[in-house]
Amino acid sequence: MTYDPSGLDPQRTIRDLKELRALTGDENGAQRVAFTDTWIAARKFMREKLADLPIKVQVDEAGNQWATLPGKSDDALLIGGHIDSVPNGGWLDGCLNLLAGIEVLRHIASLAPAARPPFTIRLVDWADEEGARFGRSLFGSSSTSGHMNPDDLRDLKDKDGIRLQDALERVGINIDRALDAKSQLQDAKAYLELHIEQGPVLESKNLAMGTVLGTYGVERHSIRFVGQAAHAGSTPMHMRRDALAAAARLELEIREIAIRNGGVCTMGRVDTKPGIVTSVVETCDCLLDQRHLDAGALATMLREAKEASEKFAQQESVSAAWTRLWQIEPILFHEELRTLTNEAIQEVTGASFRLPSGPLHDAAEVARAGVPTVMLFVQSLRGLSHTKLEDTKEEHLALSVEALDRLAYKAMEWIQQRTK
Amino acid sequence: MTYDPSGLDPQRTIRDLKELRALTGDENGAQRVAFTDTWIAARKFMREKLADLPIKVQVDEAGNQWATLPGKSDDALLIGGHIDSVPNGGWLDGCLNLLAGIEVLRHIASLAPAARPPFTIRLVDWADEEGARFGRSLFGSSSTSGHMNPDDLRDLKDKDGIRLQDALERVGINIDRALDAKSQLQDAKAYLELHIEQGPVLESKNLAMGTVLGTYGVERHSIRFVGQAAHAGSTPMHMRRDALAAAARLELEIREIAIRNGGVCTMGRVDTKPGIVTSVVETCDCLLDQRHLDAGALATMLREAKEASEKFAQQESVSAAWTRLWQIEPILFHEELRTLTNEAIQEVTGASFRLPSGPLHDAAEVARAGVPTVMLFVQSLRGLSHTKLEDTKEEHLALSVEALDRLAYKAMEWIQQRTK
Repeated sequence: MTYDPSGLDPQRTIRDLKELRALTGDENGAQRVAFTDTWIAARKFMREKLADLPIKVQVDEAGNQWATLPGKSDDALLIGGHIDSVPNGGWLDGCLNLLAGIEVLRHIASLAPAARPPFTIRLVDWADEEGARFGRSLFGSSSTSGHMNPDDLRDLKDKDGIRLQDALERVGINIDRALDAKSQLQDAKAYLELHIEQGPVLESKNLAMGTVLGTYGVERHSIRFVGQAAHAGSTPMHMRRDALAAAARLELEIREIAIRNGGVCTMGRVDTKPGIVTSVVETCDCLLDQRHLDAGALATMLREAKEASEKFAQQESVSAAWTRLWQIEPILFHEELRTLTNEAIQEVTGASFRLPSGPLHDAAEVARAGVPTVMLFVQSLRGLSHTKLEDTKEEHLALSVEALDRLAYKAMEWIQQRTK
Repeated sequence: MTYDPSGLDPQRTIRDLKELRALTGDENGAQRVAFTDTWIAARKFMREKLADLPIKVQVDEAGNQWATLPGKSDDALLIGGHIDSVPNGGWLDGCLNLLAGIEVLRHIASLAPAARPPFTIRLVDWADEEGARFGRSLFGSSSTSGHMNPDDLRDLKDKDGIRLQDALERVGINIDRALDAKSQLQDAKAYLELHIEQGPVLESKNLAMGTVLGTYGVERHSIRFVGQAAHAGSTPMHMRRDALAAAARLELEIREIAIRNGGVCTMGRVDTKPGIVTSVVETCDCLLDQRHLDAGALATMLREAKEASEKFAQQESVSAAWTRLWQIEPILFHEELRTLTNEAIQEVTGASFRLPSGPLHDAAEVARAGVPTVMLFVQSLRGLSHTKLEDTKEEHLALSVEALDRLAYKAMEWIQQRTK
């Protein structure tokens, strides 16, 4: 296998992206919410783009759509993404990778049969990555990785009261058979996912692309501070038990904890009760999100935040109670694939950079399933995502298609060496 | 005039209070909300208690009920309170003073005609002190003082959509004539008001009673900090513009400002938007209440809080905008009457203490109208008010009736000296 970039046309990907935007977006942004008619239309669009290639398309038990370009060997290189969007979403989130992946398939299919790599190439569109309708993301990929429990999900309801299980049935998915999708990973030797960064780091460093080290582990908690409601006029300062004061101190302390440990901590919501101008706050409920790429450091950040909350509660004469809402461990991508990704990005953009992913991605589920996995990020303008304002420069989109294509070749060479 | 305590029966006041509680309260507390049938029943109860005395009862243009025990001179000593309560209120707030005042009237009326002081004594039940139904307190007393503007109030609506003007008409009050009630103050030479403290200071000092220096001036503002929503996972700490961080710093700083200046500052409510666990807070709305007995110190506290908010906003790269919700100047009570009050409390309880009032009271409006005014506070257990848990020890209630009675005599002596 010798890499030959001729025949790759990144501008075609940009045209495809714009065509998809016109087909499935409106003045408020992308509307490809999973399992809706617009989402079904977007999948049809993808199949039409693949129609001229010697490719078989199938949908697995979890609703994931697989496009397979067979090779001499069943050993498969996977490229993945998601065509679904949040409501009023951006034009690139999830679908850039699929449409870039189609260009990679076109490139490989355009080669003379003797020049083609011996592997099977598969492009997967994961079902309901966003979880926008039922509040549970990564449905298709977590079913495939074996990390989906039907009993946890079947009774989730959307805003119209429709059950997740019933919504899936409408599009032909039996939730009790979704875990059978894991057979799709049987011959998978590597998984590649390109994605917009959805953050401000690459733009701030004036870089087009970066290699993703892995996805952050997350600790998500609610914290309730309880003091004593008291009249704002008649209660001297030194006699107050102000729950908001403890929360304010924690909000400031989690920033120090995050910086000290090299992660991120966010207090995204504060609710005050009784919440009136004439009373000291009795109850203050806070939502805390902590993320780190290292499991030990994440545990340290959690411990330090708990200790700080207890110290502040004691000093303010209030109580503090923690409730875990959700957690997931950090998931590191494959070290050798990260090195190859770095090379591909260096070759295409002239610079290389490694960064963690704050948001979760389908790639994390594939990695958890044991498939060697890596992601590439391309710069997001102003770090915006999940809004129609999400955008990436066209020159960067073109570079990202080139980098994915180069990485696909590097990954196949790597598979070849490993399977010798 | 020589003060003779015989004939005063403070236990009768306690019995009257319990009778009123049984008549106008339920398992959730007092229900004497102004202009309701229960409030009308409470006023009838007061008139019945006065029925055996040589007293004339009238209701003025603002709905205040006046009970007048005529003396040789038209010069009048006023004693005031309010029979209305908040919904689910306490058994003492507002009515203790009226029922104690009835005992003072009984005591004076019981004297031989030659022994009676030469002045007219008037007990006033101010209409709608609490403002519980329409959100505007001190209706009756502010109409009498000339600080009520009918056009500001007539269209206020209660939770059922009933206009204030119409609710007043139902009980015979024409809002456009309410300011005529000021004629009631024509011959007033002094005004006395006993009230529960509604705060924790006297209890913390193990004192039954205190002399009120005046009512705090109030500055009430909403402050909006605006930063930038950003993904909690993908946005490094140093790239955030977190509106909650600026609000947290202000919450902690207002405590220092209050302590440094000898007043009180309270952030009673914080609202965060978008208010989700996965986003840095973009908009944080705070409610700030600042109070001080000294107008200059209150202005300093406001200036320092504004400067702090601007400094924090700049350091956190967010904006800060202030909106004034309400303000009132500090109202100091009459210095000579405060001295007499201190003497009366010292004589009755063996100790004296001066403290400011955080909450506003009708007495503030009477003072603004130019009538020499003073208040007495009696201890509140646990500082609680506006709840059925509001309470005061019976021994302290009895002392407060004695102190009010003594102060009434001292005030009349003082009036006599001034009018010689």
